[in-house]
Amino acid sequence: MTSCIGSQAGIFLGRPCYPYTVRMAIAATPAPPYYAVIFTSLRTDGDNGYGTMAEAMEKLAATQPGFLGIESAREGLGITVSYWESLEAIAAWKANATHLVAQQRGRDTWYEEFKVRICRVERDYAFDRA
Amino acid sequence: MTSCIGSQAGIFLGRPCYPYTVRMAIAATPAPPYYAVIFTSLRTDGDNGYGTMAEAMEKLAATQPGFLGIESAREGLGITVSYWESLEAIAAWKANATHLVAQQRGRDTWYEEFKVRICRVERDYAFDRA
Repeated sequence: MTSCIGSQAGIFLGRPCYPYTVRMAIAATPAPPYYAVIFTSLRTDGDNGYGTMAEAMEKLAATQPGFLGIESAREGLGITVSYWESLEAIAAWKANATHLVAQQRGRDTWYEEFKVRICRVERDYAFDRA
Repeated sequence: MTSCIGSQAGIFLGRPCYPYTVRMAIAATPAPPYYAVIFTSLRTDGDNGYGTMAEAMEKLAATQPGFLGIESAREGLGITVSYWESLEAIAAWKANATHLVAQQRGRDTWYEEFKVRICRVERDYAFDRA
């Protein structure tokens, strides 16, 4: 893990630490096949309630049937990949009433641009130094 | 696009700007089906030549047969998704001699942990405010 330097009175010295909402873990997905939703986005200016909603949506997604894990990073471009057991589980999450409200606010306010790609994970492999 | 505040003598005020190597564009992939390689990683401490090699590998990947695009972000967790026309194109890139050297340095030095997922993109959709 890379180290970071904490903030003091809003002044960052060196690379800032990440907010507590950032997930620092690689998702522990089962053996393939399973499904991935790659959500790539560019934000509009300002928070406008985005941070709170993003965290709420991650927590809500994790309670849905067929959810396998989520990975997220933003560095100008934002990439969030969520993993699911089936296409049916993905469709159910897309149609979730609370999620529909968030999706509408995304189009109205938070996103300049986004792309969603629905994928079948065919195989995977991993490396762990530990 | 979100705004950022530049660095002054190593002191960041607010959210720092991104280095010029960061890609800020959503990949302009063709209509599905096509393939995605989701590379999720946690780095070791220090740069150790990583930044230079990462940039060189992105440039080299873009010259390979069947390459369709790449998206990348790191926020503690790093996510790089590259897009390809076929599984054969992905296999050829994995076996590229220069890339093999970079892969070995990744295991020796740069990565604490990583996971690679090879996926078939079944469908996609997009939103663009412009």
